[in-house]
Amino acid sequence: MPLPSNLPPVLSPVITPFNSVGEPDSSRLIKQCHWLKKCGVGLAIFGTNSEANSMSKDQKLRLLDDLIDSGLNPDYLMPGTGACSIDETSELSQAAIKAGCAGVLVLPPFYYKDVSDEGLFAFFSQVIDRVADERLHIYLYNIPPVTKIPLSLSLLVRLKTKYPTSVMGMKDSSGDWSYTHSVIEELAPSGFQVYAGSETFLLQTLRAGGAGCISATANINPGAIAKLAQTWQNSDADDQQNALDQVRATFAKFPMIPAMKAAVAHFGHDPEWERVLPPLEELTNVQKKNLLTALQDINFSIQGL
Amino acid sequence: MPLPSNLPPVLSPVITPFNSVGEPDSSRLIKQCHWLKKCGVGLAIFGTNSEANSMSKDQKLRLLDDLIDSGLNPDYLMPGTGACSIDETSELSQAAIKAGCAGVLVLPPFYYKDVSDEGLFAFFSQVIDRVADERLHIYLYNIPPVTKIPLSLSLLVRLKTKYPTSVMGMKDSSGDWSYTHSVIEELAPSGFQVYAGSETFLLQTLRAGGAGCISATANINPGAIAKLAQTWQNSDADDQQNALDQVRATFAKFPMIPAMKAAVAHFGHDPEWERVLPPLEELTNVQKKNLLTALQDINFSIQGL
Repeated sequence: MPLPSNLPPVLSPVITPFNSVGEPDSSRLIKQCHWLKKCGVGLAIFGTNSEANSMSKDQKLRLLDDLIDSGLNPDYLMPGTGACSIDETSELSQAAIKAGCAGVLVLPPFYYKDVSDEGLFAFFSQVIDRVADERLHIYLYNIPPVTKIPLSLSLLVRLKTKYPTSVMGMKDSSGDWSYTHSVIEELAPSGFQVYAGSETFLLQTLRAGGAGCISATANINPGAIAKLAQTWQNSDADDQQNALDQVRATFAKFPMIPAMKAAVAHFGHDPEWERVLPPLEELTNVQKKNLLTALQDINFSIQGL
Repeated sequence: MPLPSNLPPVLSPVITPFNSVGEPDSSRLIKQCHWLKKCGVGLAIFGTNSEANSMSKDQKLRLLDDLIDSGLNPDYLMPGTGACSIDETSELSQAAIKAGCAGVLVLPPFYYKDVSDEGLFAFFSQVIDRVADERLHIYLYNIPPVTKIPLSLSLLVRLKTKYPTSVMGMKDSSGDWSYTHSVIEELAPSGFQVYAGSETFLLQTLRAGGAGCISATANINPGAIAKLAQTWQNSDADDQQNALDQVRATFAKFPMIPAMKAAVAHFGHDPEWERVLPPLEELTNVQKKNLLTALQDINFSIQGL
């Protein structure tokens, strides 16, 4: 079975910088991606933390072009290409393949609610059939707290069975370990790669036979998260996990995306990074001050930005 | 205050026909729109019932062009142009303005959940500022059962106050009459036009000072709904409302969009109309049979398709 072998066990859903008129800022994103890659994480650009759905298809296509033109190795890239329509999901996925990306992360259509597994199966099937390219490596993106569309284990099994060389795995942001574990047990033996949606579950995921994690905080703590994934069989693994949990818990006291952007802005001495697109909001000055104090309390900083 | 005067009190969120490869079918849609207009309803194309979010921006732009080229009067058109990104919402709204459409129906960004009124205000403001065209007539689209993003009364007031000539009204599919009524009471005096999201509330809405309704079932019962809106001050208005309610209740026993498409396919002798895009599913044969029997029981048919 052909596996996208170069994707690392930890990927960052890369936060996206925006300029003063709300356009994505290619040059800052390129710099950030090169830094993250140097820290040892892959690049799940256009994810939830990237504010991908606050960007149009055209904005994403331009950014992808710019990233590839900057010399970024697409072996490390897993762009989010999921949209509510088969047409847009297919077009973005085809662009990712053309760019050489190792995989694509695909949301279920998230407008209609209470849709059936049959309807979701048809959606993913039609995307795969329309892309019609053996280089397509889909990772299904389960994030019911946001989409309100949970992907059932039986849906995953059905998709992996029908498309064994296209459906490579998933990112599971359900936050429900018993679900994550059931997917690993059922599907990892067939090569289905399960990435937890948070490093909170990294050690558990690796011990259970999962692939790793794609986690928000891999934007601000990439080196340490990547290190645990490399050394999870060492005796200090639980201590490493506890240290990661402490950083995450500190950020989780604030709205995550603006908090990560505020941290990158602060430690990188670049206030432009604070900007988010509506409907998200930047941290208030008070929140920013509280975040930085809390980070100081745990001796956390970001180096080398 | 300039009002988009030609929009009728009842609009149909026009169902969209798709061909066998899932592409929107312009010629069938054109025919349907001309029929609906003849029945006396306006055309809220690209709504929830149109499966608009199952189409890409490019597919919608092509359809809009084709509709206008067919000679449809844009005075009757209120396309849905809301997307999760400011960029796409602005581009679709600009295209609608360029086509001469009387108004646009704009969803809140619906990917992130639990967003603030401040974030939603910024989203709509930035769309209006970016479109930067005095011909922009926005109708805000409140449909929390689907989007999970309720539009608060105070958000509506704030938007109408800041953009009195751009924010013209809303479609309220909350299904919560006390909310609808509170919006009419607060905002109708300033010219804010409240369309109920279902004809179930048509008579109540008109009596309270609202504008009318934009309702799914205006796809299959347009003439009778339009008639009540024209004659709501007549003595038989409550009887008319009861008759409308009976038709709606029959359709509401089934998944609404596929049921309406099955009815149009049946009464128009055109099975192509049954097709829906994933994640929605067509009615099963049993459901279809039950629907047609139920429609026969209430002596309902669609004439002139």
